Amino acid sequence: MRKFISTNKWKGSVIHLSPPQVLALGFIAFIFIGAVLLKLPVATTSSISWLDAIFTATSAITVTGLVVVDTGTVYTVFGQIVIMCLIQLGGLGLMTFAVLIVMMLGKKIGLQQRILIQESFNQTSLGGLVRLVKILLIFTLLLESIAFILLSISWVPEFGWREGMYQSLFHTISAYNNAGFSLWSDGLSAYVGDPIVNIVITSLFITGGIGFTVLVDLWSKRNFKRLTLHSKIMIVGTFSINIVAFLLIFVLEYANPATLGSLPLSDKFWGAYFQAVTPRTAGFNSIDIGAMTTPALLLMILLMFIGGGSASTASGIKVTTFIVMVLATITFLRGRSETMVFNRTIKLQTIIKSLAIIVISLSVTFLVLFILTITEKAPFLEILFEVVSAFGTVGLSMGLTPELTAVGKQVIIIMMFIGRIGPLTLAFTLARPKKSPIKYPEEEVFTG
Amino acid sequence: MRKFISTNKWKGSVIHLSPPQVLALGFIAFIFIGAVLLKLPVATTSSISWLDAIFTATSAITVTGLVVVDTGTVYTVFGQIVIMCLIQLGGLGLMTFAVLIVMMLGKKIGLQQRILIQESFNQTSLGGLVRLVKILLIFTLLLESIAFILLSISWVPEFGWREGMYQSLFHTISAYNNAGFSLWSDGLSAYVGDPIVNIVITSLFITGGIGFTVLVDLWSKRNFKRLTLHSKIMIVGTFSINIVAFLLIFVLEYANPATLGSLPLSDKFWGAYFQAVTPRTAGFNSIDIGAMTTPALLLMILLMFIGGGSASTASGIKVTTFIVMVLATITFLRGRSETMVFNRTIKLQTIIKSLAIIVISLSVTFLVLFILTITEKAPFLEILFEVVSAFGTVGLSMGLTPELTAVGKQVIIIMMFIGRIGPLTLAFTLARPKKSPIKYPEEEVFTG
Ligand SMILES: [K+]
Ligand SMILES: [K+]
Repeated sequence: MRKFISTNKWKGSVIHLSPPQVLALGFIAFIFIGAVLLKLPVATTSSISWLDAIFTATSAITVTGLVVVDTGTVYTVFGQIVIMCLIQLGGLGLMTFAVLIVMMLGKKIGLQQRILIQESFNQTSLGGLVRLVKILLIFTLLLESIAFILLSISWVPEFGWREGMYQSLFHTISAYNNAGFSLWSDGLSAYVGDPIVNIVITSLFITGGIGFTVLVDLWSKRNFKRLTLHSKIMIVGTFSINIVAFLLIFVLEYANPATLGSLPLSDKFWGAYFQAVTPRTAGFNSIDIGAMTTPALLLMILLMFIGGGSASTASGIKVTTFIVMVLATITFLRGRSETMVFNRTIKLQTIIKSLAIIVISLSVTFLVLFILTITEKAPFLEILFEVVSAFGTVGLSMGLTPELTAVGKQVIIIMMFIGRIGPLTLAFTLARPKKSPIKYPEEEVFTG
Repeated sequence: MRKFISTNKWKGSVIHLSPPQVLALGFIAFIFIGAVLLKLPVATTSSISWLDAIFTATSAITVTGLVVVDTGTVYTVFGQIVIMCLIQLGGLGLMTFAVLIVMMLGKKIGLQQRILIQESFNQTSLGGLVRLVKILLIFTLLLESIAFILLSISWVPEFGWREGMYQSLFHTISAYNNAGFSLWSDGLSAYVGDPIVNIVITSLFITGGIGFTVLVDLWSKRNFKRLTLHSKIMIVGTFSINIVAFLLIFVLEYANPATLGSLPLSDKFWGAYFQAVTPRTAGFNSIDIGAMTTPALLLMILLMFIGGGSASTASGIKVTTFIVMVLATITFLRGRSETMVFNRTIKLQTIIKSLAIIVISLSVTFLVLFILTITEKAPFLEILFEVVSAFGTVGLSMGLTPELTAVGKQVIIIMMFIGRIGPLTLAFTLARPKKSPIKYPEEEVFTG
């Protein structure tokens, strides 16, 4: 079956596009459709610029959550529903929807479509992909329904049926897809100590961000020892990073009067927990991000850069990439040749791939940061935070987004796009694989 | 000969120390001797604290150049000569001096000493090391003499014989060893457009920072094509980085009234050139670093992180490490398995080593930055600049150094030490090589 994917397949088609190129073009198409809809007079309470419409559409389809205009007041319910649709489309992936449409039309899914889905989910085997997408859609619908009901229990008494259910639906979709969009300008700050809101929202975005393959693996095996290496690394990695982040943010913000300082102890715990898990890459906030201490913000920048899991609604370099790099370095320092974890060896190709992802991600981040330090007049930390937030499609901001210059907005739009498509996919699109023509002898180079 | 280096050699010695450990201990010993000498009443015009004395000694022996007190006014000539000696000792490497002492005593150099020198210079073969050290000393003396005479021609007419020659000697030693110490509080700002000072000082620190093995290779081959791969990468890499840095700094600072803005065009060229080559890792400045534009400062942070060449007076991750990483990433993106450059293949082990160096360097920098954002009350960019400057033993500062808290000074002292010893050497010292006991099967992990 695998042999069937020959290069002739692509040579035969009229337009020579690789799967990542099709994926990127799909995102661009939805950005423009979204922007046109958001520019309609019916979508906003007061007129917005084309740039702001494109920014919002990109932020929604890439599930970032950075906002140049206040979602709750500037957009009408129509505009908000457009945003909600873009989030759900972007979060689940264009390809899932392509499959859905094909399935509904009763047609069989062709190999070319499958390769597109494969790229979209970073899956290595084609078999079972269609089944996977079906399960994903059912799972999403089920989880979002439960979350919607739980949030409604909290918000209907507060806002009434209509408004309460609408808020529950919007925040459910935004949270599951790691979009970070909120209808309240201060995010979830009003619910910093509310257990139901905290648990439901974080459960949604952690589930959405850990990667669907991990969830399927957990569901089918129900035994940690029998899980795949990928699932083990994702679960242990996510858990460890969250614990460390929680403890550090709790200590660093404990006495900060602008964030956790004035809150009772239980709210301090919830606030630290929420802000520890949201940077990878949910983007909601329950305290004022811009008022946090510098070391806590630095920690959040690292967390935003790491991001979530492969084949998920999260972006960033991914937890696995981060863990593989750390393990490879420890292996090298211990003078061993093979990187081992959970009684398995990590392929050398995976290590080199991780290295490439990190180098490309750091390069892109540096370049965008460099441009924004030229165009923007804000403090360096605010710019750095904004750039990494866009790269990881996180959506947290110290408050810079609405004050960006036109060039700044354009650059952040491109960065959210790169962050979501994946720096690696983008780079692959730019440079197609070639075979090495000649083999040269090895020679020593001193490094370090 | 190589087989002779058995582990029994170490087991047999009374104190079980590896070469990197001995090297680190040697540096610590000189820091304390230096600090005691600088704390003597005869060394300063007004009393300084032990912490400031240790800071100065560490900054001198690690050839960093960060200063908590003004070298030209707080230290007496005695104190300045102590600093000069520490710079020369640190720059050439403790091990070179150990060999020199052994040679002067007429004794034959033992294998253990040779291994120490090998670690010190990052050399892979033991043969010819003693000869290399001899040439290094002669070369240093020769180059420093020429530079001393040229600078004297410029400064004796200005300051008179005594002062002019003293200034020339101090700045020659400081420049060749990439120390960045100056007797003037504004560095070389008075000579921003002076061709002789610009050419002599930059020639000294570029020569000292490119790596002695490259110079020997150049001297013996005198033909680019016949050079070693290491030399080729160092020369082309250094040249390319300097050109790009020059152009960017020229454009970014052209209209900045606090730096190049008010200068005539020729001075603008010299100023941009000097500031482009000094971050890797000379540390002198001919314009006010703290007044530079944010994008130019960001660029300098990258240059400081990259640093100079292996087996040189420079620190940082090294130009070769940077180039190898970039080449490995390009290779991966092009779908090739072997990283090739100048018709040679770079060993996989070198790529993994480079990866380890970058991961360790980024981790150390992040950790120190994190601590300083807790202890210091300065803008984030100033702290970041200071931390990377200490890591790369560069010595450039936006002005934070004298205002550091006691904890901040202690952390920067440790960082300069780590920067000079080399993150990799330090990590090797902490974690000794072990053999893998079991081989596990490979398993796929999705990254990115
Ligand atoms: K997000
Ligand atoms: K220096």
